[in-house]
Amino acid sequence: MAPVSAGVFSETGLFVCFEGGEGAGKSTQSRLLRDWLVERGEAVLLTFEPGDTSVGKELRRIVLDPATGDLSDRTEALLYAADKAEHVDHVVLPALARGEVVITDRYVDSTLAYQGAGRTLDVAEVEAVARWATGDLRPHLTVVLDLEPQAGLDRFTGRDRIEGQSLEFHQRVRQGFLGLAAADPDHYVVLDARAPIEEIAAAIQQRVAPLLERA
Amino acid sequence: MAPVSAGVFSETGLFVCFEGGEGAGKSTQSRLLRDWLVERGEAVLLTFEPGDTSVGKELRRIVLDPATGDLSDRTEALLYAADKAEHVDHVVLPALARGEVVITDRYVDSTLAYQGAGRTLDVAEVEAVARWATGDLRPHLTVVLDLEPQAGLDRFTGRDRIEGQSLEFHQRVRQGFLGLAAADPDHYVVLDARAPIEEIAAAIQQRVAPLLERA
Repeated sequence: MAPVSAGVFSETGLFVCFEGGEGAGKSTQSRLLRDWLVERGEAVLLTFEPGDTSVGKELRRIVLDPATGDLSDRTEALLYAADKAEHVDHVVLPALARGEVVITDRYVDSTLAYQGAGRTLDVAEVEAVARWATGDLRPHLTVVLDLEPQAGLDRFTGRDRIEGQSLEFHQRVRQGFLGLAAADPDHYVVLDARAPIEEIAAAIQQRVAPLLERA
Repeated sequence: MAPVSAGVFSETGLFVCFEGGEGAGKSTQSRLLRDWLVERGEAVLLTFEPGDTSVGKELRRIVLDPATGDLSDRTEALLYAADKAEHVDHVVLPALARGEVVITDRYVDSTLAYQGAGRTLDVAEVEAVARWATGDLRPHLTVVLDLEPQAGLDRFTGRDRIEGQSLEFHQRVRQGFLGLAAADPDHYVVLDARAPIEEIAAAIQQRVAPLLERA
């Protein structure tokens, strides 16, 4: 498929994404950022992928339920992309248009890192599909919570179709996130997920604060 | 996205697709073709899109159920594409690999005709997604059962999210199918769906017979 554009950044609102492996603390840190922003008087929408629309909930169940069994790799990528399309069009873009801060727990980078780790599909093609699904909307800032995979898997007690992959798979996922961040430092911050929670939260706030001033 | 290739044709088996608007007789004719082939001793798989896999059933319900409400256009295109990916990888390709005749009621052309009729998405981009979903696998023969839309809608009593579109929409769908057929006469046959059932069936058999000899 075609080369990917440099992306589209919303001119209204602020779009912040949390990425990282299992158990890195994305949901904790996204909630802490939300609380901090609300205290500062910002209108904030905290959301996640996959599954934060009515259709997305069904797609999340299909993709993650071990009972689904052996999905074609392309099917899986397209279901994630469908979830993203619905999420961007019906949740993210309307909130950004209202001038809100949208914080999402996972976005396109998760697709790239996980599919890239799978290595069964051409990652450039998967990216083209995911970019098309989202109208190539990019976060103003992506926070990568970096964690050595075994630690993450230990912290996470659940096991679904994705979490049940090998340690080597999750190590490739980690390298995927780090590679994306390294390629675009203006729009990424990488933080060590083993640091104290409040220390990580402070580092995120420090990076987000100047972005609020531009709004 | 990238220009579409000339397509991939299976070297084993025979892949025949039925396309056309609502009520044109696709399921009747596909069954008649199946019966005729079975009588000739062929191994035949009769299938359809969307929905002829366990995941596809769920996706078909989501896309067609009026209760789903207002899906993003991209979401709808991606759900159809996911259905196709699963269908091709888990149903169509295995049967073709076994040397069978696969007859499908709808395939990629339905996506192109219906999305093209909708005109809200770039059809070339929708095609790129659908071609990627299917590994660009093409039917050896597509039978277009052509019917003036109002007649088709009269014959079809049900109404789902797609059938409930305007007559003008269905007229654009019809032109979509005719345009695809006109561009590739070697792989298409267009038949008047108002002709007697047995006459249409005979015309299809006449076109399929020489394709069996190549197998």
